[in-house]
Amino acid sequence: MRKRPYLRTTPPEEALRLLLERTKPWLYDLKELVPIEEAFGKVTAEPVFALRSVPHYRAAAMDGVALKASVTFGADLSSPRRLRLGEEAFWVSTGDPLPEGCDAVVMAEEVHQVDSETVELQRAARPWQHVRPVGEDIAAGEMILPRGWRLRPWDLGALLGAGIKEIWVKRPPLIGVIPTGGELVEVTEERSLKEGEIPEFDSAVIEGMVREVGARVLRHPIVRDDLEEIRGAMREVLKEGCDIVVLLAGSSAGERDYVAEAIASEGELLVHGVGVMPGRPTALGVVGGKAAVGLPGYPVSAVIAADLFLLPLLEAMLGQLPSRRPTLPARLLRSLPSKLGLQEVIRVKVAEVRGKWIAYPLARGAGLLSSLVRADGLLRVPPSLEGIGEGKRVEVELLRPLEELSRSVLAVGSHDMALDILANELRRSYPPFFLSSVPVGSLDGLLAIRDEGAHLAGSHLLDPETGAYNIPYIRKYLEGVPVKVVRFLEREQGLIVPEGNPKGIRGLED
Amino acid sequence: MRKRPYLRTTPPEEALRLLLERTKPWLYDLKELVPIEEAFGKVTAEPVFALRSVPHYRAAAMDGVALKASVTFGADLSSPRRLRLGEEAFWVSTGDPLPEGCDAVVMAEEVHQVDSETVELQRAARPWQHVRPVGEDIAAGEMILPRGWRLRPWDLGALLGAGIKEIWVKRPPLIGVIPTGGELVEVTEERSLKEGEIPEFDSAVIEGMVREVGARVLRHPIVRDDLEEIRGAMREVLKEGCDIVVLLAGSSAGERDYVAEAIASEGELLVHGVGVMPGRPTALGVVGGKAAVGLPGYPVSAVIAADLFLLPLLEAMLGQLPSRRPTLPARLLRSLPSKLGLQEVIRVKVAEVRGKWIAYPLARGAGLLSSLVRADGLLRVPPSLEGIGEGKRVEVELLRPLEELSRSVLAVGSHDMALDILANELRRSYPPFFLSSVPVGSLDGLLAIRDEGAHLAGSHLLDPETGAYNIPYIRKYLEGVPVKVVRFLEREQGLIVPEGNPKGIRGLED
Repeated sequence: MRKRPYLRTTPPEEALRLLLERTKPWLYDLKELVPIEEAFGKVTAEPVFALRSVPHYRAAAMDGVALKASVTFGADLSSPRRLRLGEEAFWVSTGDPLPEGCDAVVMAEEVHQVDSETVELQRAARPWQHVRPVGEDIAAGEMILPRGWRLRPWDLGALLGAGIKEIWVKRPPLIGVIPTGGELVEVTEERSLKEGEIPEFDSAVIEGMVREVGARVLRHPIVRDDLEEIRGAMREVLKEGCDIVVLLAGSSAGERDYVAEAIASEGELLVHGVGVMPGRPTALGVVGGKAAVGLPGYPVSAVIAADLFLLPLLEAMLGQLPSRRPTLPARLLRSLPSKLGLQEVIRVKVAEVRGKWIAYPLARGAGLLSSLVRADGLLRVPPSLEGIGEGKRVEVELLRPLEELSRSVLAVGSHDMALDILANELRRSYPPFFLSSVPVGSLDGLLAIRDEGAHLAGSHLLDPETGAYNIPYIRKYLEGVPVKVVRFLEREQGLIVPEGNPKGIRGLED
Repeated sequence: MRKRPYLRTTPPEEALRLLLERTKPWLYDLKELVPIEEAFGKVTAEPVFALRSVPHYRAAAMDGVALKASVTFGADLSSPRRLRLGEEAFWVSTGDPLPEGCDAVVMAEEVHQVDSETVELQRAARPWQHVRPVGEDIAAGEMILPRGWRLRPWDLGALLGAGIKEIWVKRPPLIGVIPTGGELVEVTEERSLKEGEIPEFDSAVIEGMVREVGARVLRHPIVRDDLEEIRGAMREVLKEGCDIVVLLAGSSAGERDYVAEAIASEGELLVHGVGVMPGRPTALGVVGGKAAVGLPGYPVSAVIAADLFLLPLLEAMLGQLPSRRPTLPARLLRSLPSKLGLQEVIRVKVAEVRGKWIAYPLARGAGLLSSLVRADGLLRVPPSLEGIGEGKRVEVELLRPLEELSRSVLAVGSHDMALDILANELRRSYPPFFLSSVPVGSLDGLLAIRDEGAHLAGSHLLDPETGAYNIPYIRKYLEGVPVKVVRFLEREQGLIVPEGNPKGIRGLED
């Protein structure tokens, strides 16, 4: 009896802790000097000090006349003070420098112009009123930003205002991504795929994920399931200056785990097998002093594992805390069995039905990338539980903006492509409505309506006794539930025959 | 008496509604064909249909032997079934195509290998067990993504898996940005600034903001305060294919509002003056069939106005709902007077003190970009209120990640550059601590401690009666409050004299 290698699984928190402690990503100190215009979204490598005060001169803070406050002392309604323009008083606009000898601005609304040479004031001015002192916003020499600061749009403005044209930012970490597996084919190949061949797209997914946190990818060409080839590829990306090595396992669990073996033989294997599903076959280690992350080949597993181990590593290199997705409390619509001892990550749809948020679990297969595309969020079942019961309150990590989900209609039940077309059309209006669907059977759809877990249900249930569609079932399962029955579409089904219909098939009776 | 032009202010929601209704950004339909590798973060312009099923062949879902299920029927513990390898049973790895004639996979753990040519099974297999049918993940021809879908990393994987190599995405809207104002100087100029000159950095801030939602900027060189020049610049950027024109007013309110005049004379002025502060002098209109947005010159006003009008416009062009910042309920530490009839946007620091979140209002000047840099969030006082009282619950829009704020220490009180240096050093550790400070007086710092609105307070209060520093004040204002007094630093102050100290000043007595 052939057995797959036993994997002692390490809890994910423990696995991450081991990886961080061993590789100390917070010591990452590569930096580069970039012009401010290119610094948006990057992270400061050093504190930044103002080269110039803002404003760098005494400026009028109002439109009006600039003057020396002392010449107005004593002015009031009964004894207004007249001043000669161009000698004692000067018209200024906001932002203008204060003329020599002036220390106050009187706003235009309070100035009475007597003639072209004279203005009159009915109130005394305070020294420094409506004057922006030098450095009011930023003082030359002050620290504008500390190290480790992720630059937002207005930060760039403050830097440019303070006379800074380029700054030291952390060099975006370079991730060497090596896809492994004899079954993999480059997506750029123009021929159609043979049976058993799989297009290599995990590296594109990982590249998107690391770009989101501010890192770059150097992708190595596909490597076969060969220990020496994989080791060679690792040495190559390290020589190219990569700060982390990511190995993508083939989607086959295979007889041998070349990825873990390669890490162990080229460096040190810290963790092989983590207590999370999907994502269990993850391997973590150190190679050439750099972190090595072996991600499982199934796409959903790769995403979950990259999210748990690769992204926190990158964030630590950039001095950032691990980012967390917004969460939403919801009622679990269907019970969820789960494996004790493993954290299970479940893809869910969420919807706001009658003012309450529900979570509907989707298919779990690690190979079903489409279910991640369709998921509105992720739900983690902790390893201490054997599942979560129907109706329980759960916390969902959102994969789509909450605003979108608030305007989403959830269809549960029998699916038809027409629902996708409808969903597409609903997005033409603005603000758009979003229609998303959970393809289960007609009956499950009706039950979801009953349990306030869906806005609409696709149904094509034939009652054999009466010959009627749907209505008898609605009467039976949705008694007392106010529903509207919409005749949405008729489906014509046919038989698929070889070209030319050689057997002359005309109907089911043939 | 010279008066500034009266601005009838339009409430911001009404102003946005007018702009959207008149320019109908949701009809924006420019698109471009991009390779999937470049599509990350972009928005689909059309629904995307799968070109290939995933998997595109019947695949083993487990490592084990593939066989025709019917040959195992009847097998059990007492009468195990023996099968000839290579004829009736075939070793397969996960992902392998099913050999001709097979319809099931028995997992390796349940297969007993008798000899090199024979395996034995103690249980019957179900047809199609552990087999991934064609299209299990994605079926050829199905709609993978609808129009208006912002592409996430895993979406790219699903597209590549389904044989799609390039897709139509919405062309990132091109924003023509025209800075206006005679006082402005290009930040690229190498000379130092004269009095009255202001470096033009608002366009860099706006560029960062629009890039975040997926648009691009074509920046026009600075234009003087001249109606004809501004009109010419607008025509120019429209000729270059810009989808929106943004005019940046000079920071001077000036005698004339050239920006509004230019929009009115070149097209139609819809709104001039919105009921929001900072941001009031905003002008909105239509020029050459495109939206024209005139942003105030003060940097904070420009950010607030761009956030309220420019970004929702861009999001609508891309078919997205306006994004909202995460919010945090907090207790307002200091009362906040506000102008009736205007929405006031207040920059605040937030901190979690003794388990409760507080919001501390910062300086309000529209020219103080540094206060936006230092702000943790924004607080909007609705136009119906004349202010918000101390201790009231407010909702803060966060400008920094909540995780960072949870690890932030808030220092209120007398400021010293040493606090900035300390803040910078605290970021070296990992996970970092964040120290942020509100520079008010020493006494306000002590009062913030008393009111549970700060973690620490910088103080240098001399008690004239006893000659002692700080302690008498702490006794008086913080009676009963458990505090720790830390002697942080001594400050040496001096006199600044001209080079060479020509007057021979040696001390205050001189």
